[in-house]
Amino acid sequence: MSYTAPVKDMLFAIEHLAGLAQVAALPGFEDAGLDTAQAVLEECARFNEGVVAPLNVAGDRNPSSWKDGQVTTTPGFKEAFRQYAEGGWQGLQHPVDFGGQGLPKTIGAACAEMLNSANMSFALCPLLTDGAIEALLTAGSDALKATYLEKLVSGQWTGSMNLTEPQAGSDLALVRTRAEPQEGGSYKVFGTKIFITYGEHDMAENIVHLVLARVAGAPEGVKGISLFVVPKFLVNAGGSLGARNDVQCVSIEHKLGIKASPTAVLQFGDAGGAVGYLVGEENRGLEYMFIMMNAARYAVGLQGIAVAERAYQQAVQYARDRVQSRPVDGSLPGSAPIIHHPDVRRMLMTMRALTEGCRAMATVAAAAYDAAHHHTDAAVRKENQAFYEFMVPLVKGYSTEMSLEVTSLGVQVHGGMGFIEETGAAQHYRDARILPIYEGTTAIQANDLVGRKTVRDGAATALAISAQARGTADALRASGTPDAVAVARRLAEACDAFDDAARFIAGSAKSDPNAAFAGSVPYLMLAGNLVAGWQMGRALLKAQELLAGQGAAGGDAAFLQAKVATARFYAEHILVRTQAQRDAIVDGAASVTALALESF
Amino acid sequence: MSYTAPVKDMLFAIEHLAGLAQVAALPGFEDAGLDTAQAVLEECARFNEGVVAPLNVAGDRNPSSWKDGQVTTTPGFKEAFRQYAEGGWQGLQHPVDFGGQGLPKTIGAACAEMLNSANMSFALCPLLTDGAIEALLTAGSDALKATYLEKLVSGQWTGSMNLTEPQAGSDLALVRTRAEPQEGGSYKVFGTKIFITYGEHDMAENIVHLVLARVAGAPEGVKGISLFVVPKFLVNAGGSLGARNDVQCVSIEHKLGIKASPTAVLQFGDAGGAVGYLVGEENRGLEYMFIMMNAARYAVGLQGIAVAERAYQQAVQYARDRVQSRPVDGSLPGSAPIIHHPDVRRMLMTMRALTEGCRAMATVAAAAYDAAHHHTDAAVRKENQAFYEFMVPLVKGYSTEMSLEVTSLGVQVHGGMGFIEETGAAQHYRDARILPIYEGTTAIQANDLVGRKTVRDGAATALAISAQARGTADALRASGTPDAVAVARRLAEACDAFDDAARFIAGSAKSDPNAAFAGSVPYLMLAGNLVAGWQMGRALLKAQELLAGQGAAGGDAAFLQAKVATARFYAEHILVRTQAQRDAIVDGAASVTALALESF
Repeated sequence: MSYTAPVKDMLFAIEHLAGLAQVAALPGFEDAGLDTAQAVLEECARFNEGVVAPLNVAGDRNPSSWKDGQVTTTPGFKEAFRQYAEGGWQGLQHPVDFGGQGLPKTIGAACAEMLNSANMSFALCPLLTDGAIEALLTAGSDALKATYLEKLVSGQWTGSMNLTEPQAGSDLALVRTRAEPQEGGSYKVFGTKIFITYGEHDMAENIVHLVLARVAGAPEGVKGISLFVVPKFLVNAGGSLGARNDVQCVSIEHKLGIKASPTAVLQFGDAGGAVGYLVGEENRGLEYMFIMMNAARYAVGLQGIAVAERAYQQAVQYARDRVQSRPVDGSLPGSAPIIHHPDVRRMLMTMRALTEGCRAMATVAAAAYDAAHHHTDAAVRKENQAFYEFMVPLVKGYSTEMSLEVTSLGVQVHGGMGFIEETGAAQHYRDARILPIYEGTTAIQANDLVGRKTVRDGAATALAISAQARGTADALRASGTPDAVAVARRLAEACDAFDDAARFIAGSAKSDPNAAFAGSVPYLMLAGNLVAGWQMGRALLKAQELLAGQGAAGGDAAFLQAKVATARFYAEHILVRTQAQRDAIVDGAASVTALALESF
Repeated sequence: MSYTAPVKDMLFAIEHLAGLAQVAALPGFEDAGLDTAQAVLEECARFNEGVVAPLNVAGDRNPSSWKDGQVTTTPGFKEAFRQYAEGGWQGLQHPVDFGGQGLPKTIGAACAEMLNSANMSFALCPLLTDGAIEALLTAGSDALKATYLEKLVSGQWTGSMNLTEPQAGSDLALVRTRAEPQEGGSYKVFGTKIFITYGEHDMAENIVHLVLARVAGAPEGVKGISLFVVPKFLVNAGGSLGARNDVQCVSIEHKLGIKASPTAVLQFGDAGGAVGYLVGEENRGLEYMFIMMNAARYAVGLQGIAVAERAYQQAVQYARDRVQSRPVDGSLPGSAPIIHHPDVRRMLMTMRALTEGCRAMATVAAAAYDAAHHHTDAAVRKENQAFYEFMVPLVKGYSTEMSLEVTSLGVQVHGGMGFIEETGAAQHYRDARILPIYEGTTAIQANDLVGRKTVRDGAATALAISAQARGTADALRASGTPDAVAVARRLAEACDAFDDAARFIAGSAKSDPNAAFAGSVPYLMLAGNLVAGWQMGRALLKAQELLAGQGAAGGDAAFLQAKVATARFYAEHILVRTQAQRDAIVDGAASVTALALESF
């Protein structure tokens, strides 16, 4: 199945929802206007459609393999990665100082979505490299930056994030990997890390492992964790590669999906200690890691949108081609393509609305990130930072959970053929299943949303966001069209439901933490649903305005009408779920923990 | 992961919800009282836990394989099937006249659930054999019955159902396989059938294919389809096996799940014609097939419950064992088993409540089936038949869709380990995905529910069912306990939502069929949700009564208290979804088909 990047929808979100003009007004982004966005997206689409997407099925059928500590990736991956690096795609959002393009996240997010739609397994290598770059930019010494950043930004080397150990998954307090200080300032690292994405592979000449470990004598728990760079090959003074470091890939996992992406077990220090270099200060590793993780969490949210888009395109294609049964309204005399059947339309619309809604949410969040980092006014930066931080668990949690629904519907649209692996729909269903798990499960995102993002400020940010959504509902109602009024009704109801839930959670977190956290994931889903639905409401308003104003012709008019129809579907079929989420959170908290432990 | 049959919960549903005493009062079921049920279930549990369940993982890792037209099943399957047959399990619900046990479906359903929990791939062989038996009992001539039934009932031979062709999936009007009458009354059959479960295997000495085909000159469409028996080996007059018939397995599919179950492409008649025998009359094949399919649809619903139960058990085990993070309520000083975390409890409760709710619904439906077939009063038979027919699409559609949610949560509870195939949670997620597809997709079930079961009688049956549920809500409210009152509230709201939806669908099916069918699947999900929630409400009342009356001690009291807690959770977290379903059906019908076809 081929992939066609939804450039038009991405540009609509970038221009009209994220407000690219304001982003391009920020210092450093002067060249990042609409023309640039369009040119970059079109070039990115060409590369991903032509080079990366055709390798997606091959990666599933012929996954990465391990032999004697070496991992061989799917044939074609190495060459595609070379082209990816040469095209400058790894450096898209990274600083010009280190060879990057310095583009805003508002544009970069669309490119990341395309890469992931094209091939999620392939895209994980750049995603992890971005994380390593982020960590070094945040906390690396000048020497570390000088040694590693340009090579990472250029795609000559790649990165990996080493957090998890067999006993330490979500709970990093349990990390046992240890680092012993050496003369000259380096450390020797000893331990086992699991679930290391692209922890070993053959696509680049060196791998820069970012590793969480404890220095002897460090405090217990998360306050005693430090972050280290442990390169696969040591780097000589001039930048050339030196000796092989003492880190070995002892196996890779046999997984449900993303099979082409090697998930390594890495053994550090079995032959005397892996040479590592401290990033920043001792015992502040978790803090640095959180910066990387926030970037990675956002990126995993994009993966959800990406795999949903790909599944949607494949399902639409099948629904157009597959002929079966006469339409119930008698509009055709005989058997028709199944896209004529109302339930197939319902499934495709659900897939489409969820995907577009999450894309709109993620794009708006990206613009807030850009403003939070580049705006000249500290108050504006702070406001955007608060908004962005509230969005990260929604983009990650809601978009990935929705990708399970969308890829499952993608299988269902195919009927029996969906269950046959050669069709390809099942691959999306399998691939997507990791997304609500890695980089923090949905429950971990929800804990973050409840604890740091809602309870800490007494739900102030949460209620400010729903107040903005309410403003959109008012504007929709005022516009007076039947579509806008219908959306306004559901959006306002969703705001009420969200406010109830936010107040309940903020109010009970101290007095009855089990009640607050019992509703944490439903609260995340409610919040994500509201924000995505709100953005669809904004999109409807803008589409109406453009349709009325310009006499938009041809494809543009059709695109804008489709946006209106999709926004209304979102409101009437997806936003309406918020009431049940509210009821479960506010009225159903006690029944979550009522069953005696021994009765399970 | 081992499996422990939930015998106590099954017996509770059989005794108190389905009313086994009334079933045992029906002619022919005099011996099928509670003692019999308990003895059969315990023996069935022993067999499935000990013999069948241990082969589940093996079947996934070492699936059925094809070579030169022969299919070799997973090592151990053949021997397990021999034991299954020798234990008399194939004949459990079949007539004593043909060597069966003649037990009611009310008991048989629990046994089928166990077999499917133990090993869904294995269980498909008996499931299809049941279908073949049903078809022959319904419409077979005495000669066909004499030749085939005893061998099928004993498990010496197995059956298969041959409906689907490449161009004819849900749309059987497109069937092209043809049958040519021969001298002597037999036919020669020519054509290709796909997706034939256990269409070829090595577990029995003969396979009795039930095949849909057209006789030359038959009417177009579904009114020209006839049903044939086409045995793999012809049967000599004395019952011994004769020549190999002209039906060949040309390949089996590479599937997402249920990998041990061979899904065959069968070629009939390439060497001159496969010998077939007409079942019943020409051109009535679809009618007979519907009888088989109703049995098979109910059975697939049980598969959903079965895989959900297995996934739940595995998730509970992991949640008890996996230690990670301190409880949010500070109840333990350090890292705790994750079952202490509210969101893990929420996931496990969701899995448990959905599974128990669907089991209750299916068990009650089974009792209606028994009454519909065995009651002496024609009016009672008719009433039960109407109820059972309404239930079939719910048992099939709702239980299988819920199995996707439950098996997905099962993966999620495992975190990263859930994505690793060796853990086993992913197998349930993959296996379950076929259930809302085969034996009629959820949309096909929903069409049946809308067309035949709701519109045809002006929603009379639908509204009668919700009136009964309303009676339970009244009784719950009257009982006055906080749990019962909380459930009553949600159950009454669900009845309102359902009534709105049923009236809307019955009212618009003629005038605006697209609007009615746009909501068909949400209507099915609403109906299933309501009926399962209603049964959980009945269970709560009964559990309260037993707890109050008997001073139930030990395990029984804990079981009954768990039932109360689970019923309340169902109401507060799952029944509440019905409002959004109603809104989507009644208010959102137009937006399903608003998007222009070319805009997808």
